[in-house]
Amino acid sequence: MRTLEAKRSTTQPRSAIETVVRELRRSPLLALIFFVPVVILLERMAPEAHTLLFFVAIAAIVPLAALLSRATESVAAKTGDAVGGLLNATLGNLTELIITLAALQAGQYLLVKASIAGAIVTNSLFMFGGAFLIGGLKHHLQEFNRVNARFQASLLFLATIAILVPSLTSGLDRTPAGEFSQQLSLGLAILLIAVYGLGMVFSLKTHKELFASVGQAEAGEEPWPLSIGIVVLIVVTLLVAIVSEIFVGSVQAAAQHLGLTPAFVGFIVIALVGGAAEMTTAFSAARANRLDLSVGIALGSAAQIALFVAPVLVIVSYFIGPQPMSLEFWPGAVAMMLVATMAATLLSNGGHAAWYAGVMALAVYAIFALTLFLLPPGVTQ
Amino acid sequence: MRTLEAKRSTTQPRSAIETVVRELRRSPLLALIFFVPVVILLERMAPEAHTLLFFVAIAAIVPLAALLSRATESVAAKTGDAVGGLLNATLGNLTELIITLAALQAGQYLLVKASIAGAIVTNSLFMFGGAFLIGGLKHHLQEFNRVNARFQASLLFLATIAILVPSLTSGLDRTPAGEFSQQLSLGLAILLIAVYGLGMVFSLKTHKELFASVGQAEAGEEPWPLSIGIVVLIVVTLLVAIVSEIFVGSVQAAAQHLGLTPAFVGFIVIALVGGAAEMTTAFSAARANRLDLSVGIALGSAAQIALFVAPVLVIVSYFIGPQPMSLEFWPGAVAMMLVATMAATLLSNGGHAAWYAGVMALAVYAIFALTLFLLPPGVTQ
Amino acid sequence: MRTLEAKRSTTQPRSAIETVVRELRRSPLLALIFFVPVVILLERMAPEAHTLLFFVAIAAIVPLAALLSRATESVAAKTGDAVGGLLNATLGNLTELIITLAALQAGQYLLVKASIAGAIVTNSLFMFGGAFLIGGLKHHLQEFNRVNARFQASLLFLATIAILVPSLTSGLDRTPAGEFSQQLSLGLAILLIAVYGLGMVFSLKTHKELFASVGQAEAGEEPWPLSIGIVVLIVVTLLVAIVSEIFVGSVQAAAQHLGLTPAFVGFIVIALVGGAAEMTTAFSAARANRLDLSVGIALGSAAQIALFVAPVLVIVSYFIGPQPMSLEFWPGAVAMMLVATMAATLLSNGGHAAWYAGVMALAVYAIFALTLFLLPPGVTQ
Repeated sequence: MRTLEAKRSTTQPRSAIETVVRELRRSPLLALIFFVPVVILLERMAPEAHTLLFFVAIAAIVPLAALLSRATESVAAKTGDAVGGLLNATLGNLTELIITLAALQAGQYLLVKASIAGAIVTNSLFMFGGAFLIGGLKHHLQEFNRVNARFQASLLFLATIAILVPSLTSGLDRTPAGEFSQQLSLGLAILLIAVYGLGMVFSLKTHKELFASVGQAEAGEEPWPLSIGIVVLIVVTLLVAIVSEIFVGSVQAAAQHLGLTPAFVGFIVIALVGGAAEMTTAFSAARANRLDLSVGIALGSAAQIALFVAPVLVIVSYFIGPQPMSLEFWPGAVAMMLVATMAATLLSNGGHAAWYAGVMALAVYAIFALTLFLLPPGVTQ
Repeated sequence: MRTLEAKRSTTQPRSAIETVVRELRRSPLLALIFFVPVVILLERMAPEAHTLLFFVAIAAIVPLAALLSRATESVAAKTGDAVGGLLNATLGNLTELIITLAALQAGQYLLVKASIAGAIVTNSLFMFGGAFLIGGLKHHLQEFNRVNARFQASLLFLATIAILVPSLTSGLDRTPAGEFSQQLSLGLAILLIAVYGLGMVFSLKTHKELFASVGQAEAGEEPWPLSIGIVVLIVVTLLVAIVSEIFVGSVQAAAQHLGLTPAFVGFIVIALVGGAAEMTTAFSAARANRLDLSVGIALGSAAQIALFVAPVLVIVSYFIGPQPMSLEFWPGAVAMMLVATMAATLLSNGGHAAWYAGVMALAVYAIFALTLFLLPPGVTQ
Repeated sequence: MRTLEAKRSTTQPRSAIETVVRELRRSPLLALIFFVPVVILLERMAPEAHTLLFFVAIAAIVPLAALLSRATESVAAKTGDAVGGLLNATLGNLTELIITLAALQAGQYLLVKASIAGAIVTNSLFMFGGAFLIGGLKHHLQEFNRVNARFQASLLFLATIAILVPSLTSGLDRTPAGEFSQQLSLGLAILLIAVYGLGMVFSLKTHKELFASVGQAEAGEEPWPLSIGIVVLIVVTLLVAIVSEIFVGSVQAAAQHLGLTPAFVGFIVIALVGGAAEMTTAFSAARANRLDLSVGIALGSAAQIALFVAPVLVIVSYFIGPQPMSLEFWPGAVAMMLVATMAATLLSNGGHAAWYAGVMALAVYAIFALTLFLLPPGVTQ
């Protein structure tokens, strides 16, 4: 037994590497993984080359996010419905979570908040719009299960509203200098995590048939063996953490140099980079006329940011970082989140998709990006 | 003939008491009616015990509201469809109306406005959410008539928008010191009552089949004889008026002592107390898988607050109270009303209910309550 | 050949006049065309009679708008599906476009913006509400194709959002004095026109079956010969331009004299006058139980204002007028546009109409009008 175990532990890394290599061949995006050692070396050798570090770190995170997503699904597939669903649900936005934790630790609250808002907006408008457009270019009119879509959209709407309450009452916070907003954000975070827990019971236990199709995300892709999945999960999580720290360290100087606001970087760049893996899945599902899956991923991922990532960041901010973080967003971000969620709700509502609806959603997203790009810095504090 | 009539008039009070006693046995909540004489006596003996008076008055209003609702329905059942429907529609929120009239007379405009806003939000989120949760714990997936629900939800949305127009343009009111807001609120109130009158024609005459199920609210409960119904209606209305006056007289001091803001008291406490009777009906209907009825009560009651109670209060404020009241709400209340109405619209839209949707709606309500609880006083003026 | 051509060119004007006369007999509204020469003469003789000029110009524009609409449709009917659809789509709001161009040239940006906002709100609430009410007074319950209506409503919602982005982030524009807002508005305008162009491809080419019924607008009305259509189109466009210039020249003094704000004139008067022709069509379609058509006209026309008229005005403002115009609206107009679009979305959503829904939409419109009427001037800058 002992020798066998020892043997396994020595073969595992090798076979993990083999698996990774095989994956790399199949999915060309993974070739970007080459940038992971590059960025780590570069940071040691030229820590002041912020702009270069910024771009190389982005290039390195994309394939890591894809691997993370693949590993999570493999582990989930091998651990059975309940644990697997839990893993998929919890680790679905792991990349965003790690990047924002790094930003939190560095005290860059604006970046953290912009990333939260941006992830919700990107999932609601860009992922939805992209899926409708890509699906619609191949299929004349696509139908999807509108009962489920509507149900998930109304959950997303309520989740978004929930995290926006402190912002909606924020103008009132003149008197006791932020104390009210702090308390409210903490109470809210605890409540949201409880609601998220109940949501797991709902989607994994009492009403799992409503969410069934999402589970079969990677049909056709064979899951990795459990041990490889776990090893990849741990190793890649560590790598994402390392690269994220480099990214966050370089972002301020790089953004200044490139003329980008932190709001733009958080809202657009991090959201697109962190969600790249999910988007690939959602878009290829739309192309395969499985729009139910695309809609489920987009709505589910956005809701998870609101109900899980955002409150976790608030609670963690009490332990790391210079001071507790509130859930107060600047008014423009609030408007964008509300509008994006309502757009996703409207688009889910009909149960039909055509390419032009995708164009419209992408146009609204482009307008948001343009706004954030043109916005004078210092405005979004 | 004459003796018979005389006889009837003497037997009526006794039989009314008997009926009340029988009701008390059937519905244990009514036992709280014991607090009605207690609060009246207490107010005479210890007018300065504000906090005690506050709680006892709340305990006394709950059973009175239940009796009022029962009496209204009994009279409605005996007076035929048209008059009965009219009564049900007009007196459905009688408790809220009496409490807010007492607050209006005392010049507590903040409490009045908070009660209006709170009643709309409580009906849209708490009653809806509670019905979905209670129904969903017993039934896996509940369906309801989505055509009717959607129609009523869009009416509620328009009604809410209507009363929010002065608030949405309120930031503009710098120049002529409130005069614009006064005029607008009065014009609006007259228009809303006209719209409400047309709504009666619609729901009781031209399209009564759309609202049919709501009329059979108390199936199984035998209506009281007409005379008893009328007597109870008058007597209990008077009692509610007396207790409301005591409640309003004690609320400011009590709230200060308990650390509650007037906004919290109006928004949450009065809304829950005033709507207790309707909620009981809506929740038991949900349990009995008659979700159509629950949805109809919640949406209809919220719309009635916007189209009838709010404008009546504005118009009455010209005759009682220190000065006319406008329909201008503080921005947080506006956001909450809009969001609650949109949530109710979304939840009605699908035609399906499951317990988690109820949890989400209740969570948003809890977040609103938490916000109002933590809010520093003086902010909601 | 040559003589024949020459002959045709001489007979055309005469037969055009004949056709116009025949139309005048059929549609009594066209008798108002008498005011066109009156207003032109009056402006020469009494250029200072602003209030009189204001009213006569309004009376003159209504029949011109009707003729313009009729001529556009005639030309469209004769030039085949593709070109005709393009014409109908582009010239559908030609009257609004000409009036606002005249206002733009005069530097009356407030009037321009109020007209844009007002056209969207008027199409969404007044045209929708009127169609529901007029249709509902004749038919108990009207059904319409909710898949198409929903799809078009979600496009309208996205289009409205798009033009509102600069306003939603406008509070942020303190620092660089409007420069950000200018740039954003220009970028947005270019993007919107591109989206509008794609929308043509969508509605006229790839998915024309979704919009089919709208094309048969004037069933029963025989189209004019092509040559007459083109001549009328050109002549009437010139007349509208002349009358619009007189109107814009008189509006400021007249509004001051009548106690009307420019916001009221732009939002309500211009929107109703400019849209009179379309409303006539939408209302008579509702009466004929062709609610699909009414809904299509209302939603389509509102979306066209947002996607075509508004961006064209922004771009043209760089060439005419004292300075470039941004797409920033005052907060009240933003709220009204958002609310009106959401109301139209909700009303489309159900697929059912009854008269009371029309009353509610008209009531909200009346409240908006009352607000703008009471609004102190100087507030909407």
